[in-house]
Amino acid sequence: MPVQVLFAAKAERWIEYEEPLTRALAEAGVEAKLACEIAPDEVDYIVYAPNSDVQDFSAFPKLKAVLNLWAGVETVAPNPTLKVPLARMVDHGLTQGMREWVTGHVLRHHLGMDAHIVNPDRLWPLGAPPLAEQRRVTILGLGALGAVCGQTLASLGFQVSGWSRNLKAIDGIKCYSGEDGLKAALSEADIVVLLLPDTPATENVLNAERLALLAKGAVIINPGRGPLIDDEALLAALDSGHVGHATLDVFRVEPLPDDHPFWTHPNITVTPHIASETRSWTASQCVAENVRRGEAGEPFLHLVDRIAGY
Amino acid sequence: MPVQVLFAAKAERWIEYEEPLTRALAEAGVEAKLACEIAPDEVDYIVYAPNSDVQDFSAFPKLKAVLNLWAGVETVAPNPTLKVPLARMVDHGLTQGMREWVTGHVLRHHLGMDAHIVNPDRLWPLGAPPLAEQRRVTILGLGALGAVCGQTLASLGFQVSGWSRNLKAIDGIKCYSGEDGLKAALSEADIVVLLLPDTPATENVLNAERLALLAKGAVIINPGRGPLIDDEALLAALDSGHVGHATLDVFRVEPLPDDHPFWTHPNITVTPHIASETRSWTASQCVAENVRRGEAGEPFLHLVDRIAGY
Repeated sequence: MPVQVLFAAKAERWIEYEEPLTRALAEAGVEAKLACEIAPDEVDYIVYAPNSDVQDFSAFPKLKAVLNLWAGVETVAPNPTLKVPLARMVDHGLTQGMREWVTGHVLRHHLGMDAHIVNPDRLWPLGAPPLAEQRRVTILGLGALGAVCGQTLASLGFQVSGWSRNLKAIDGIKCYSGEDGLKAALSEADIVVLLLPDTPATENVLNAERLALLAKGAVIINPGRGPLIDDEALLAALDSGHVGHATLDVFRVEPLPDDHPFWTHPNITVTPHIASETRSWTASQCVAENVRRGEAGEPFLHLVDRIAGY
Repeated sequence: MPVQVLFAAKAERWIEYEEPLTRALAEAGVEAKLACEIAPDEVDYIVYAPNSDVQDFSAFPKLKAVLNLWAGVETVAPNPTLKVPLARMVDHGLTQGMREWVTGHVLRHHLGMDAHIVNPDRLWPLGAPPLAEQRRVTILGLGALGAVCGQTLASLGFQVSGWSRNLKAIDGIKCYSGEDGLKAALSEADIVVLLLPDTPATENVLNAERLALLAKGAVIINPGRGPLIDDEALLAALDSGHVGHATLDVFRVEPLPDDHPFWTHPNITVTPHIASETRSWTASQCVAENVRRGEAGEPFLHLVDRIAGY
């Protein structure tokens, strides 16, 4: 009997995933039935979007694992009905897309591109920027995404520091942890990149007090999660000139509402949650590999630590 | 007697270079007199800006070498009074600055940043960009600058092709040469980066016929030299929509005149010759090393082939 894989996500995701996921399962050598409707007592795996209709996992007695379609698990990890392993998405496409978005926007701010893209006064010269080796980038969060972004920036010559809950050792990145480490990492930042998970411990990690630690004119780049930043504190720090610019890809409410002050602030750039976009053709390979592992009795990849919340 | 090093460049360059070049010569172990005025029959080396007052090198009977402050030698290489070795600037700061500028602007176009930086209609979502592995970048010119830019882009995942007069073999870059190679390299380009030297053979290398080879909507990035592009042909290709955007750092006349149509074209970005900016503190090390080599009887670095013109 084929492995029963329930696809629990909005209809538009099914349109996106049906073909690549069917193909990826076949390529992984798994004989599977993949569908949006399967009798609950037959379901082996759930491919899962946290905003789907499935919220009570106790209805699935044979369930072996929940395979999240996205990296963020903040709304599914605390679900008390979930008793089986939960795997996050660690997608080549997502990782690579994040690396490109972060590298691009760090270089944009480093090079002062905006002054050339919009230059009504035809100013010449605006002066050559410093070299990357003179620019300090701090990454908050050194998981799979933070580490690869930090190493890419280091390979381009930037001075890269990073902070994580537990101290890491990563080539090319000066690593910090703990509350004192956070202060040190922020006070040596010209550009801060937020790649922490969204947990109760990271909410408002950039609050007024921490923003005050940054060098004057520092740039904030948030491709992580909206709640990492205290929105009011950020607006105040931008208005006072202490923070130079913020480029934000994630928000507490998405799409960002039309009347939100971020849209019109001259020193905020809004991008529409494209940095951490999962690509269906690469994500399907990650899901299929975990189904294969589950059936072969091998350990799942990218398991969530549900106590820590990521 | 100290080595006599004449600094032949505009006064503002002397302000920039006096201290770092004096220090670099001392650090290279050369006992030198560095000055803007030295009796011509005593001069051993000329540190040279092609726009300086020195145009007749026959006045310097003891001259051992001319050490150019910039990478471009198009106005000095043909000088018939120059009978001694001419070295180009291959400056770590220039190379690194070029790498940062090219990588930044390729990523800017790849990610479609401009639509987010200027987004009066608050559009959401604009859609995630393709991954770098789906984007083809062609670099014309595979000298020191082109090679390092191409390899950096390849390390970020882009499909990189390159063209040079003589066929090269560079890891990560699909290399072409010759007229047929140029056609092939251009026809597989989503983004073209111009890093050729300015010689009679490269003038207008991007003319109407070659622009027509590009994929529709292709982006042109020129941090090389202004005359590489036929300006009128570029404007026509942009107006027809065949070329999507051009980001230009170099021009036939600099600063770009206020009434030049490039300033106001909606699909042209002008940057003020910052990509190939030499940094005095790194360039001084290059000059000092060549003086040291000359005095030690070692071969000079970065000698110009005066027949080829670069």
